[in-house]
Amino acid sequence: MALTISHRCLNIAPSLTLQIDTRAKEMAASGLDVVGFGAGEPDFPTPKHICEAAKEAMEMGLTRYTPVAGTMELRMAITRKMERDHGLTYSPQEIIVGNGAKHCLFTIFQTILDPGDEVLIPTPCWVSYPELVRMAGGVPVFVPTNEENRFIPSNHDIASRITRRTKAIIITSPSNPNGSVWSREQLQFVGNLAVTHPFYIVSDEIYEKLLYDGRKHLSIAQLGEQIKDHTFIVNGVSKAYAMTGWRIGYCAAPRQEIAAMTAFQSQATSNANSIAQHASAVALDGDQTCVDEMREHFQARRDLMVERINCIEGISCLKPEGAFYVMMNIRNLIGRKFNGRRLEDSMDFAELLLAEKHVAVVPGIAFEAEGFCRLSYATSEDRIIEGLNRIEAFIKELE
Amino acid sequence: MALTISHRCLNIAPSLTLQIDTRAKEMAASGLDVVGFGAGEPDFPTPKHICEAAKEAMEMGLTRYTPVAGTMELRMAITRKMERDHGLTYSPQEIIVGNGAKHCLFTIFQTILDPGDEVLIPTPCWVSYPELVRMAGGVPVFVPTNEENRFIPSNHDIASRITRRTKAIIITSPSNPNGSVWSREQLQFVGNLAVTHPFYIVSDEIYEKLLYDGRKHLSIAQLGEQIKDHTFIVNGVSKAYAMTGWRIGYCAAPRQEIAAMTAFQSQATSNANSIAQHASAVALDGDQTCVDEMREHFQARRDLMVERINCIEGISCLKPEGAFYVMMNIRNLIGRKFNGRRLEDSMDFAELLLAEKHVAVVPGIAFEAEGFCRLSYATSEDRIIEGLNRIEAFIKELE
Repeated sequence: MALTISHRCLNIAPSLTLQIDTRAKEMAASGLDVVGFGAGEPDFPTPKHICEAAKEAMEMGLTRYTPVAGTMELRMAITRKMERDHGLTYSPQEIIVGNGAKHCLFTIFQTILDPGDEVLIPTPCWVSYPELVRMAGGVPVFVPTNEENRFIPSNHDIASRITRRTKAIIITSPSNPNGSVWSREQLQFVGNLAVTHPFYIVSDEIYEKLLYDGRKHLSIAQLGEQIKDHTFIVNGVSKAYAMTGWRIGYCAAPRQEIAAMTAFQSQATSNANSIAQHASAVALDGDQTCVDEMREHFQARRDLMVERINCIEGISCLKPEGAFYVMMNIRNLIGRKFNGRRLEDSMDFAELLLAEKHVAVVPGIAFEAEGFCRLSYATSEDRIIEGLNRIEAFIKELE
Repeated sequence: MALTISHRCLNIAPSLTLQIDTRAKEMAASGLDVVGFGAGEPDFPTPKHICEAAKEAMEMGLTRYTPVAGTMELRMAITRKMERDHGLTYSPQEIIVGNGAKHCLFTIFQTILDPGDEVLIPTPCWVSYPELVRMAGGVPVFVPTNEENRFIPSNHDIASRITRRTKAIIITSPSNPNGSVWSREQLQFVGNLAVTHPFYIVSDEIYEKLLYDGRKHLSIAQLGEQIKDHTFIVNGVSKAYAMTGWRIGYCAAPRQEIAAMTAFQSQATSNANSIAQHASAVALDGDQTCVDEMREHFQARRDLMVERINCIEGISCLKPEGAFYVMMNIRNLIGRKFNGRRLEDSMDFAELLLAEKHVAVVPGIAFEAEGFCRLSYATSEDRIIEGLNRIEAFIKELE
C-alpha cells in the first residue's frame, strides 16, 4: 500500500489567486516591471503607534501563552469597539481571537458543520468560502447574482435554495470581490429567515472600515436580539489597520458557540501571537485617524480606476461602495483573439494580460464570476494609470 | 430544529491541563500564594536579540502577508538548522511554517488521515495528540508503557498494534509528559516498521534542545533516506528560545506532503505572523548561548526536584533525560484519605493538593497515565523547594 494524503486534502482546490500572484512575483523578481492588481491587502505600512505598541509588548514580557480565546485586554477592546461602532453589546466570553479572520471562519465551520450540512454562499464570493465549507464536510450552495442587481442576491434566489440541511449563510458586506454593500432591507430579510428556519448567519465584516462616499457600516446583528443570537460576526485588524501580516482576526457570537470554538481552537492552534494581540488592542482603542486617511486614499484610487475602466472600449465596471476591489466586466472580449489565440474565459484573459503586458489581475472564475476580472486598487495612483494604459493597449491589439 | 454545534466539536475533550491551570490562576488572582507546577512553557523572557529582530522587522515593513508556507528567509534558516544540528538536508519546499508546533501537528493529521485511519500513540502522551487525531476523523491507538521501561514502548507492544488501517505513529523524544528519550535502536525499529508497512512517522521534536547530562538529540529521520521519506519532523522556537507566545512552529517532510499541507493551510489560516517569522529566523541563525544557559538552569532544577521528590515517603520519580517535566509516581497514595475523603485517582490528588496546599500539578489521567502527576520544573528553585515542602506536608496529613 502506498502512503496517500487524505481525501479531504486531495479535494482542496488550489487557490487561483495565489497561482496568478506567484507567477506575477516570479516575473517581477526576474526584473520585469509588473503592475499588480491582484493584491488582497492595503499597500500602506502598519501605522507607527501600533508598531510602538508591539515593541512595548515585548518590553512588558508579553511573550508567553495567552488564554486560548485571546487576552482579556484584547477581548475587552473588541467589546468596546462593537459597542462604539454598532451599539452591539458582547461580553468577553462572546469573543474569540484567532490567527486572522480566515482562521476564525475556519473554526466557525468546523464548529457548526456536520457532513452534508449546507451553507448558502452568494456569488461572486471570496475564493476561500467554498473550501472552508468543504473542509468541514459541508456543501456550498451558491446563490448567483449579477451586475444588474449590484451583485446582491434577490430574496427569492436566497429563499428558494433553503433546504432542511441549510445550516448557515455567508454575508459579506462590503464584499470581496465586488465591493457591494447590502441594504438594511436585504439584511433584514436574511435575518428573519435565519431566525425562522433556523440557520446561522456568518457575517464577514472585515472590510467594514472601507466604505466610501460617507456610508456607515450596518452589521446584520444590529437588526434585533434574535438575529444577533444567530450571528457570527467575523472581523479583524488586517484591512482597517494595514496589519495583514500580523494575523489577528476575531469572532463575536453567542457564548455557547464561542465556548465550542474555543475548545476546538485549544486543541488545534491555541492562542494567536501574544505581541500582535497587544498591538491590536491598541489599534482598536487608539486614535482612528489612520483609518480615515487610508480610506480617503482608497476612495480617490477607486474613483480613478472606475473612471478609467469605463473609458476603455470593451470593458466596464460598477462603482463599488466598499472594500478595495473592482469587478471589471470583460464579457465583450470573450471570443476575441490575441495573436491568433482565442480568449475563452477570464482565465485566458488574465494569463495573456500577464504574459503580454505584465499586468496581474485575478480571473473572475476564482470567485465563481466568469466574465469578470477582479482588480485591486490597493496600489498607487501612478500604478493604476500605468496598468490601465497597458490594459487598454492589450484590448486594442485584440482581433 | 434547534441549532447545534457539530459532532466533531461536541466530541472534543476539554483540556484537563487547562482546567487545573484556570483554577490555579483564579486562586492566585484572589491573592493566594499558589505554587504552579502546571506550566508548559519556559519561565524565561524571550532573549533580547530576538526581540530586537522583531522590532527590526517592523522597521523594515515586514507587516504584510508572507508566502503561506513561510518566508523564504525563515525556511532557509530552518534548512540550515536541520543540516547543522542533524546533518539532514531539506529544501525550502520541504518545510512549512505554522502558528506553533501544535498547529503543524493539526495540519499534518488533516493532511494524512481519512476517517477510520489509525495512529499509534505511546502513552503517557501529550494531551492534544488524541484530540488532534480525532479531529481529523482518525482513531488514536494507544501503546501503553510503564515506568519500569522508562515510558518507552517495547517493540512487541508497537508491532502488535499495527493493522491495515495504521497510517502513522507519533514519536515524542524528549517526551512531554515524561521526559524520556528514545534510543537509536528503538527509533531504528520504528523507522524500519514504518518503511515496510508503510506508515508515516510524526516525530515531535519540540523539546530537542532540552536534553541533559550532555546528551545529543537524534532525529528518527537521521536513520536513513527511506525513513526520512516517511517522516514529518515537527519543531518550533517556543521551548528552545522561550517564545511560546510568538506561535511559530514548523514541519519538515517530503515535498508532496508539504505541498498538500500548504494547500490546506492556504485555505485554513494562511501564513503565520510575519514579524515573528523574522524573529524566529534570527533565533535559529543567531548565537545559541541563550539556549545553553536556559538548559543549564533547567538541568539544575530537574536535579533539585528529582532529589527532593525521592526523599518524600510515598512518592517517587525517574530522573528524566529531557524536556522540563517529572512524572511523579503517586500510586502508593491511592486509597489513602485526606480529612475523610478517599483519594481515588490522580485527579483527586491534584484537586485536593490545589485546594488544601495551593500547589498546582497536572493529574496523570490527562496524559493517559493514571497513578502519576506531572510536575513542570519551568519555575525557580525557590518555588520548587516551597512546592515540594507543601507536597510533603500534604502527604504527611494523609490517613
